[in-house]
Amino acid sequence: MTRHLLLLATIVAALPAAAQLPAVHVEGNRFVNEAGETVVFRGVSIADPDKVERDGQWGPALFEEVADWGANVVRLPVHPRAWRARGEEGYLELLDQAVEWAGAAGLYVVIDWHSIGNLRTEVFQHPMYETSKGETARFWRTVSQRYAGNPTVAFYELFNEPTSYNGTLGRLSWHEHRELMEDLIDIVRASDPGTIPLVGGLDWSYDLSGVREDPVRAEGIAYVTHPYPQKRERPWEPKWEETWGFVADTYPLFATELGFMSADGPGAHIPVISDETYGEAIVAFFEARGISWAPWVFDPQWSPQMIQSWDFEPTVQGAFFRDAMRRLND
Amino acid sequence: MTRHLLLLATIVAALPAAAQLPAVHVEGNRFVNEAGETVVFRGVSIADPDKVERDGQWGPALFEEVADWGANVVRLPVHPRAWRARGEEGYLELLDQAVEWAGAAGLYVVIDWHSIGNLRTEVFQHPMYETSKGETARFWRTVSQRYAGNPTVAFYELFNEPTSYNGTLGRLSWHEHRELMEDLIDIVRASDPGTIPLVGGLDWSYDLSGVREDPVRAEGIAYVTHPYPQKRERPWEPKWEETWGFVADTYPLFATELGFMSADGPGAHIPVISDETYGEAIVAFFEARGISWAPWVFDPQWSPQMIQSWDFEPTVQGAFFRDAMRRLND
Amino acid sequence: MTRHLLLLATIVAALPAAAQLPAVHVEGNRFVNEAGETVVFRGVSIADPDKVERDGQWGPALFEEVADWGANVVRLPVHPRAWRARGEEGYLELLDQAVEWAGAAGLYVVIDWHSIGNLRTEVFQHPMYETSKGETARFWRTVSQRYAGNPTVAFYELFNEPTSYNGTLGRLSWHEHRELMEDLIDIVRASDPGTIPLVGGLDWSYDLSGVREDPVRAEGIAYVTHPYPQKRERPWEPKWEETWGFVADTYPLFATELGFMSADGPGAHIPVISDETYGEAIVAFFEARGISWAPWVFDPQWSPQMIQSWDFEPTVQGAFFRDAMRRLND
Ligand SMILES: [Mg+2]
Ligand SMILES: [Mg+2]
Ligand SMILES: [Mg+2]
Ligand SMILES: [Mg+2]
Ligand SMILES: [Mg+2]
Repeated sequence: MTRHLLLLATIVAALPAAAQLPAVHVEGNRFVNEAGETVVFRGVSIADPDKVERDGQWGPALFEEVADWGANVVRLPVHPRAWRARGEEGYLELLDQAVEWAGAAGLYVVIDWHSIGNLRTEVFQHPMYETSKGETARFWRTVSQRYAGNPTVAFYELFNEPTSYNGTLGRLSWHEHRELMEDLIDIVRASDPGTIPLVGGLDWSYDLSGVREDPVRAEGIAYVTHPYPQKRERPWEPKWEETWGFVADTYPLFATELGFMSADGPGAHIPVISDETYGEAIVAFFEARGISWAPWVFDPQWSPQMIQSWDFEPTVQGAFFRDAMRRLND
Repeated sequence: MTRHLLLLATIVAALPAAAQLPAVHVEGNRFVNEAGETVVFRGVSIADPDKVERDGQWGPALFEEVADWGANVVRLPVHPRAWRARGEEGYLELLDQAVEWAGAAGLYVVIDWHSIGNLRTEVFQHPMYETSKGETARFWRTVSQRYAGNPTVAFYELFNEPTSYNGTLGRLSWHEHRELMEDLIDIVRASDPGTIPLVGGLDWSYDLSGVREDPVRAEGIAYVTHPYPQKRERPWEPKWEETWGFVADTYPLFATELGFMSADGPGAHIPVISDETYGEAIVAFFEARGISWAPWVFDPQWSPQMIQSWDFEPTVQGAFFRDAMRRLND
Repeated sequence: MTRHLLLLATIVAALPAAAQLPAVHVEGNRFVNEAGETVVFRGVSIADPDKVERDGQWGPALFEEVADWGANVVRLPVHPRAWRARGEEGYLELLDQAVEWAGAAGLYVVIDWHSIGNLRTEVFQHPMYETSKGETARFWRTVSQRYAGNPTVAFYELFNEPTSYNGTLGRLSWHEHRELMEDLIDIVRASDPGTIPLVGGLDWSYDLSGVREDPVRAEGIAYVTHPYPQKRERPWEPKWEETWGFVADTYPLFATELGFMSADGPGAHIPVISDETYGEAIVAFFEARGISWAPWVFDPQWSPQMIQSWDFEPTVQGAFFRDAMRRLND
């Protein structure tokens, strides 16, 4: 923990106050800080704060550990079912704590409305992801009012993974999804113009090809991809370039989920099964294009795991991405 | 019960397994089985399985009795309020049992989302029919996943009775309703392409005149009418032909509700009051055009009743349609 | 109370029955009664009947007092949260009583669906105003069926205060809001063609400028404005004329909320802070154009208050508008 304490001390010294990380905004295809420097975000998703709290692991130490791994950003996946179960005030308390502890640890925050499915038809992959257009809009109004002007909260990821699930959740075109996201951008911007909206593509946020002809009609946003290894066959790079990599030529791009694990690991499932060759390939691809990234997930149960237990012993992917964050983040 | 037991024995012998009735699909304006033979469905609606279960009458005997009356199909009306009250898992258990018992008795199944009203505005005739576009879509996604590939479940009746109730439930054009139904067709087809979607018309599923110019934009579906006697004045036949009979020239047509009772019977109400002259006329009309049919309702309380009690003593319409089924079904 | 009893006696004598006030309809830009006489409505809003009942103040005396102040109309603001909490049947009982007591006191009734926010996105100013397009439509179907043909219920105010709250509740154009209101007009008209629908403008029902080019596509309706003093800087009159006053040249206009209080009064808030100069100006503006009006609110807690306590001692604005009603109403 020595290293970690030193790191914290540095951060605390550098910041006017714990929650006052320098604001970040979009310029062209880059994230830029107040000093005009390009910032690439490399961090992790934790599990839903509601889950972490129920596990008895909710506290500053989690965020300090993430920072100690070299991260400069932490993503908070808010499941609609958890949001309703805990109640708005109860859940906002968790988010307030996360923002405070993340800021104190030098981590920017992505707040992620962690639904999976088709917001147009309101059919979702699983009950834990069920929401509605109205609830989603109310969530973002509430959250953008709560964190308006707070630079630590750098990103609002408007809808985790849009998908028609091969049509089983109903038709969802990029045009239809784009219009829903534009409504949400208007809402968060009206309360909080300083936080960057993140928009994912179809196919569980893998596919941004619609952006080529029909980008979101809003300035200052960034796009999201979730390029898990089994989304495409190898060689990956030409497919990555065609489906989402090209976006980075014009807009900031943030892979807010990615990750790998072996087929015999706990909770292994398509499309996450792979090994470090995937890790090497995707980080190289990101680095060549200035793409930000945050693997899924800094949790010992949810898969693909980055830690083996709450002692923070890294898994294979955990060690891989920890080393990459320590090497690549300043 | 002798006849009934013999019938069952025949069916069981003829089928590889209880739930393995031969699959049926649409060819032109006909339902066709795997042997290429035209199938006309003649059967009954039972009450909501939730109601039958609460009445203590839920079991294979009900389906065996329906088969003994000569039916080859049974319709299961799932009321949205019952679906929510019992919960998805609890209600699916009822449907699983119904499909098993129906299959064992040689009966195909229509699963019917038994709402009445305007799905566009989400205003319904009575609280028991209240649902939403989202819940309706989620119901069909769940059901079509559950029974994917099961040939006994031959039909998904997407929305029982669309109606604006003379405008009191808000405007509902055929174009608007058609678009809502197309969304649901996409959903059930994506999980279960083998089951035939059924689409009813406006005016409580009586009026299919919109199909003349603007048919549903999907292949392999069938249309529904609910031609209760008091929907039109006599002579009925020219009006039936103009409003829905013409559909049978081009598409398969299934009258998933019809029925009659005397004005002094229990629960008599417009538009169901009539007598056997209606029964004779409508069955003749159906037979001349190859239209499938299933009267409402094989229950001693809900009206117009087909049985007087749970001893299965037929009412007047019960005896009439029982004799017709025995005569016309093979 | 002597004056009050006399007044009541006059009304009771003049009416065939308590609930049988003469029907009022729209002709050109006027409200007209069965005798062909122009009627200008001048009355008050009470608090939500649910709140008054919980305060122990629910009874005929409240309506008699309002009539004694010279009012000819009373507005009933039904908050969506109260509607759900009390349940449809429980809340309708309150409305039934209000309609009976109001009619007996010679007061016409405005039933007001007291939501504030954006019905398109279903994001609202506060949880007590949360509803949905479906619930709003079901409310109006229920209410218009309940009071169909009842002339005492003269007005249905379809949606209290449409607002995007500077965009924080999502985009809401006049065209979008108009279409939502037209749906509701169709619904109430189908059950109850005799009651006049009231449609408010954007900006918390202040701004009717959209009506100039794009009036609601329905005959026989009236428009609503809520011209609180701080909606515009003085001189008010040219702005009032441009934003909503012009509507009164062509359509009946009803200011269903307005009011003022001093900055140090209980519950004082923007935009209601002003004094009697506002009262004088706005009443003169109304009178010059035949605009109906009903200040907010005949309650000792909700602000701006018209009464100091349940003894009905008037506040400053209470006395001002009481005197105006007594002077201007016949
Ligand atoms: Mg921020
Ligand atoms: Mg994921
Ligand atoms: Mg099937
Ligand atoms: Mg009326
Ligand atoms: Mg107000």
